[in-house]
Formats: sequence, C-alpha cells, structure tokens
Amino acid sequence: MSTASFLIALIAIFIAAKVFGEIAERLGQPAVLGELIGGVAIGVSGLRLVDPHDVTIHLLSELGVILLLFVIGLETDLKKLMQVGGSATAVAVIGVALPLAGGFAFGELLGMSRMVSLFLGASLTATSVGITARVLSDLGHLKDDASQIILGAAVVDDIIGLVLLTIVGTLAEGGALTVLGIGRIVLIAFGFVLLAIVIGSQLAPMLIRAIDRIKVARGLLFASIVFALALAYVAQRVGSAIIIGSFAAGLVLARTHRGKDICREVHDVSQFFVPIFFVAVGAAIDFRTINWMGFALAAIGIVGKVLAGFVVWRKGMNRLVVGAGMIPRGEVGLIFAQIGLSTRLLSAELYSAVTVMIMITTFVAPPLLRRLLAQETPGELESGSADIVMDAPADDAGS
Amino acid sequence: MSTASFLIALIAIFIAAKVFGEIAERLGQPAVLGELIGGVAIGVSGLRLVDPHDVTIHLLSELGVILLLFVIGLETDLKKLMQVGGSATAVAVIGVALPLAGGFAFGELLGMSRMVSLFLGASLTATSVGITARVLSDLGHLKDDASQIILGAAVVDDIIGLVLLTIVGTLAEGGALTVLGIGRIVLIAFGFVLLAIVIGSQLAPMLIRAIDRIKVARGLLFASIVFALALAYVAQRVGSAIIIGSFAAGLVLARTHRGKDICREVHDVSQFFVPIFFVAVGAAIDFRTINWMGFALAAIGIVGKVLAGFVVWRKGMNRLVVGAGMIPRGEVGLIFAQIGLSTRLLSAELYSAVTVMIMITTFVAPPLLRRLLAQETPGELESGSADIVMDAPADDAGS
Repeated sequence: MSTASFLIALIAIFIAAKVFGEIAERLGQPAVLGELIGGVAIGVSGLRLVDPHDVTIHLLSELGVILLLFVIGLETDLKKLMQVGGSATAVAVIGVALPLAGGFAFGELLGMSRMVSLFLGASLTATSVGITARVLSDLGHLKDDASQIILGAAVVDDIIGLVLLTIVGTLAEGGALTVLGIGRIVLIAFGFVLLAIVIGSQLAPMLIRAIDRIKVARGLLFASIVFALALAYVAQRVGSAIIIGSFAAGLVLARTHRGKDICREVHDVSQFFVPIFFVAVGAAIDFRTINWMGFALAAIGIVGKVLAGFVVWRKGMNRLVVGAGMIPRGEVGLIFAQIGLSTRLLSAELYSAVTVMIMITTFVAPPLLRRLLAQETPGELESGSADIVMDAPADDAGS
Repeated sequence: MSTASFLIALIAIFIAAKVFGEIAERLGQPAVLGELIGGVAIGVSGLRLVDPHDVTIHLLSELGVILLLFVIGLETDLKKLMQVGGSATAVAVIGVALPLAGGFAFGELLGMSRMVSLFLGASLTATSVGITARVLSDLGHLKDDASQIILGAAVVDDIIGLVLLTIVGTLAEGGALTVLGIGRIVLIAFGFVLLAIVIGSQLAPMLIRAIDRIKVARGLLFASIVFALALAYVAQRVGSAIIIGSFAAGLVLARTHRGKDICREVHDVSQFFVPIFFVAVGAAIDFRTINWMGFALAAIGIVGKVLAGFVVWRKGMNRLVVGAGMIPRGEVGLIFAQIGLSTRLLSAELYSAVTVMIMITTFVAPPLLRRLLAQETPGELESGSADIVMDAPADDAGS
C-alpha cells in the first residue's frame, strides 16, 4: 500500500464514519450503525475505496477494537460485573448452546456432513462484544444492570466461542480430540482471564506508582496502552483473543487510583481508531453473497440469543434487552467463516451464508436495542455518571 | 505482518520512545533525541524488534509526521511567518546553495561523475523540519522569532529540495531537462503552497461553519484531520511533499475561529503517532554503514547551514540558533539516498555516506540547540502562551 492510497483510505473511512454516523443520529439510531453502513458504502459492496483485507487497514482496525475493549474495560466496574456474574454466565452458556444446536440441526436437516453442521453451529455462537458495547454506550446505557450482564455474557461467550474454534479447528484439520485435550483448551481460555485479573491487579498499582515518578510527556497514557497491548498479545499467544486481553487490562487499571485519568486519556486516542474498526467491518460485507441460507442462520442466531436473555432471573430486569444485546455476531464469527473456507469445510455458498448471518445480526441489533431502551431511563445503577466511551453528540458544539 | 508482530512492534516503539525520552529529559536534552536513540536501540542496529521498512510501520510513521506538521502549522501564526518571510527565504536559499556546492565540490574532488556529485550535493540540502520543530517545541521555544525563521526556511528548503529531487531524478533516469521543464517544476512546488493557503483560507471557514451544525461526536477533530490528510494527498499528487500539505492545512485552520479547539484535539491524537515517526527514523539507522565520507558530508552540511544562519539581518537575533536549527536532515535526505541507490547513481558506499550524514546531523542538532537556547528566555514574541505541540513534562504528574 502506498502512502497515497493509505491517505485516500483514511479520508474515506473518516468521512464515511462521520457522515453516516451523523445521518444515523439524526434518525435516532446509534452512531455505530452509521459507521457500519458507511463501511458498506466505501467497501467491497460500494465504492471500493477501502480494502478491508489490506494488511495496514486490518491492523489499524485490530488496534481499534483492542482500544475499544480497553476503554470498555476501564469503564466497567469489576465488582459490579462479578455481582451479575451468575446471570451473565447463564446467559452466555444458553446463548451458545441454543444457536449451536440450532445451526447443527439446520445442517443435519439439509443433509450436510456432521463436521459441517457442527461448524455452522459453532459459527453462530459468539456475540460481538464490540458492536453491542458501542450501541449501549452510544445510547448512554453502558452502566445499566442489563448492560453489565450483556457485557459479562459477551466476554464469556467469546471465550466459549474460542474454545469451540480450537476444538472444531483441530477436528477440521483431521486431528483427534481427547477429553484431556478439551479440558486443556477450556482451562487455558478461562484461566487466562482469571490470571490476567489476579496478576494484573498486583502489577498495575506498581506500574502506576512508577509512572507517577517519571517526567516524560504522557507517561501515564503510554504505560496504560503498553499494558493493554501486552495483555492483548499474551492473550493471543495463549490461545485466547486479543480483545479479551485488552478488556482484562481495562478492568485491572480501572481499579487503580489513576483509573479515571487513564480512561479519559485512552478515550481521546481511541476515538481515532474505533471508527476504523467499524467501517472495516462494514467494508468487508459483500452483498453479492446474499442467499436464503444466510437469512435462516440469522433467524436461528437471533432466536437463540433472545431466548438466552430470558434465563436472567432478576426481577425488574428487561430480559428482552439482554437477549437483543447478545444478537450481533462479528469478529469471531468472521474468523470462523474464514477458517471454514480455507479448510474447505464450508462451500462458497455456506461461507456466504455465514457472512450474511453476521451482516443481518449486526444490523438488526442497534435499532432493536434503541427501541427497547427508549422506554427506560439510562444508568439504573449510576445515573449520575455519564458514559465516555463515545462522547455525547453535543461534545463539539460549544466554541 | 501478523497482529502479534504488530503488537510487539508497537509495544517496543512506545517503551523505547518513553524510556529513552525520559532519560534524555533527565540529562537535560530534548525528548525527541531520546526517541531517536530509542529507535536505534530497537531497530536494525539494535534489538531488531521494529522493521522500519515494514509497510504498516512505515505508513503509521508517515501519519505521525503528517500530524506533527499539522499541529506545527496549527501552532504557527501565518502573519508572523510572513513577517520573517524575507529572512527565512534568504536563509533557505543560502542554506541550500552552500551544502549543494560543497557536496558537488566533494564529489568532483574525489573524481566522481558530474551526475553523482550533483546528487550528493542535492542530498545535503533539505532540513528535517519535523526534527527541528520538535526540538524547539520540547525546549519551549517554538514561538521565538528565530524559530519562526527556522520553520519558514525549513519549509522553503524542503520545497527547493523537492524541486532538486525532481530535476536530479529526471536527469538520473536519462531524461532531458529544458528551461521550461524546470520552470514548471518550480512553479508547481511553490504554487501549491500559495494556492493551498489562498484556497484553503476560503474553504476552511465554510468547513468550520458546517461542522458547528452537526451533532456527531468529534466532528471538528475528524473534519480537521480529513482536511489535513486531503491536503497532504493533493500535495503529493502535484509533486510537493505530504508534510508541506499538512503544514499548509494547519496554517489555514489556525486562522478560523475554532483554531485553538482544533489544535488541542488534534494534538491529543498526534501524541500517539508522532513518537512512531521518530522511533522509525532511529530504527532505520544502520551503524554498520559508517564510513569516513559520511563524516565529511556531515561537516559540509553542518557548516553550510550554520553559515546560512548568518544571512539573517535582524539585530538582536541569535543567528547561530537559526543556523543550528537548520542542521538536521531527515525525510527528504533519506528519500534522496533511496532514489540514488535504486537508480544506481549511488554506490553502496556512497549510500551509506549519505545515511551517516543524516544520522550525524540529526543527533548533533538537539543538544546544540538546547545549549544555545539555554542562554535565552523562551517565547520572545508571545512569552505567555505555552507551546502545546508536546506537553510539558509535568503533564501527568498531578493525580
């Protein structure tokens, strides 16, 4: 990629993100929906100004989702997340089991091989925590009880999704799986998060104390970002996901005495990268791949997650919001689709179907959530504290 | 480049920038010197954690220097720059002529072909405005009279350098040059800056008025960055340099009624990218290429620029500061070296010599400027306004 085409891509991304984001907000929709549609407009189905498979754009969008989850982690109260841990885990487990079973049954019904059916089911499992968190944040509901459950469940089902990916991947490549092998995969996936939080909670205060003594400009910002990138790297290395790593980094740093400063400074930088992620997700969507199976898979995926929301047993909780929040599939689903294609488990037709399913679930959730949340007052737990993951629209209005 | 190696590179860049920046500041040197040395430590002469020729790292560092010059443009008062325009142009012209003649004579003395001698001379001409501006800003002297002359002269000699590059490049590829052809090259190079400022000054207030009406988050920031990227793109397209484009964008936007807001917001984002540029410059330095000719070229380059400083005829001006500020060669010099190598005009030995010259001039200027400026009070024209290109060291100290 030359400097000129890089500049064109960045210009297109920012204009698309902000113009379509503005239109979305004027229509009362979350800005992130506009960014996704903006991505479609300039991506492979539109003007083709941005190639989402270009390595630099891909890496910048990865950085965007890492920083997004880092800020969301910084915004999240670990204690509150633990309080809803039971509900979140239940939602996650049911929210994985139902789409997995549904996708598997769909494949069996159409007479596909058992492996293909399993793969289809697995590709339906993981919620895109990035998209959901952005929507909740755009709408000012990130601190709600229901949002905490969604966030917790999305993290847990990402981890389950990664476990499934490892298992299905091993099977797809003709490897044998033992109970011991599966146990090891599960242990690594969940163990990483626990260890990251436990060890990170010890390390973070030392890091912050060291930073307080140095003089160089923006030491706190860079130390925090390095911490997040390092955890993202370790997460990927041990077989978890980069976004789990940076989310854990955010959770840990939020509990230090500089947590609020870190959140503000990282937030300023993340603003630049986060739209690149959402536009790139939109840009990758190829409308030529649309077929009926995609709609069927989307229906299975939506029904499965919405039903999962109803396992929440707290009274006064809008359980439909929880289910709706779990609908969007994103990164992990796309990873499944790509692995399926490269291992020839998925035909071009089935690959398209999975992509279409991701596309539909991604576009359905934002307006649905907005509709459901419009009836509620924001911030049930901490109505005084404004979400700052994305600024309020009026941010730039004063001079 | 995989996500994992990208994360490692970013982690290495940020740690190197901040650790060596901190050491530099504790030794009373500008932070940018630390960033350059940090780059050496992790680059091709050091730990090899960062490959400055990797396309993503290269593009991010390009973005860094674009944003750096954009912020410097936003910090620069166009009127004040015009006031020193005469001095700046004189410094630039002499500062190009002397090293060009010196380099040419050096080549002739060693019995090189006339083309090679010309090429050596041309590679000595262009000041790295990025490095000099960062040093002046680190030391809190960006608003001085002398600094305005240096900035203006550096921009002018960058343009002259690009003109020379086009001419020498055409000759190197065996093309013929007419007086008309040269006139056209000169016209485009200087015409772009004038047109960008004249047309931009008409467009910018309209852009800002439009932004004031929209609701989407960070509209002002993104509109400004798109404006800068677009001018950088156009600059490159018409045969100027990306940094000239973004500098012009900054000059123009600074004069709108939201100039100060834009400067603050862009500055926050630029913090993230600027260190990538300086670390990448350091990382590209290969100590194995050191040879005596590099030292000779560096001496010619340093003497030529220092002498050029003495053409300033204002009284009370520290003319040594002006000359010292013009010493660092950077981007344009490296572009010369690479073109020389690829067109086989420069042998591996001469290529190394040009690289060594760039390296020496880059490392000599920061401590020299600091020494010279230590005797002066900062901000002769606007001593009340603090530079914000890079934050003051104490920025993060309060909790």
